[in-house]
Amino acid sequence: MPHQYHFDVTMTCSGCSNAVNRVLTRLDGVSNVDISLEKQTVDVTTGDSLDYDTVYNTIAKTGKKVNSGKTIQ
Amino acid sequence: MPHQYHFDVTMTCSGCSNAVNRVLTRLDGVSNVDISLEKQTVDVTTGDSLDYDTVYNTIAKTGKKVNSGKTIQ
Repeated sequence: MPHQYHFDVTMTCSGCSNAVNRVLTRLDGVSNVDISLEKQTVDVTTGDSLDYDTVYNTIAKTGKKVNSGKTIQ
Repeated sequence: MPHQYHFDVTMTCSGCSNAVNRVLTRLDGVSNVDISLEKQTVDVTTGDSLDYDTVYNTIAKTGKKVNSGKTIQ
């Protein structure tokens, strides 16, 4: 079963959202990344083995503020 | 002996430079961070035990492009 995780992240320009996109697409087990700078949202689809905390920590290490996050599936 | 490291990093807004500043000031052993958005530079002063690679990797994990880096001291 794939997972879907949703995060609300403060991103102020396309450089910010590109940075988040870059670290997530580099992460093993990520199958899709959908980022909206307008909505300040990051949606990540992963394979079975990639857990919420790993995805959360990867985003946190960008230095962006993660305002909330949840597992959709 | 403290170390001084210099990096050229692509940062396109203050959200970008704040993110880099945030991850570096969180890093154990960092004594000073000086970031110029205008010059696209990141200067880091650390204690004896913090090596170049650790600082480099911390910046790289922000997802920003590190165009070059060097040890000043």
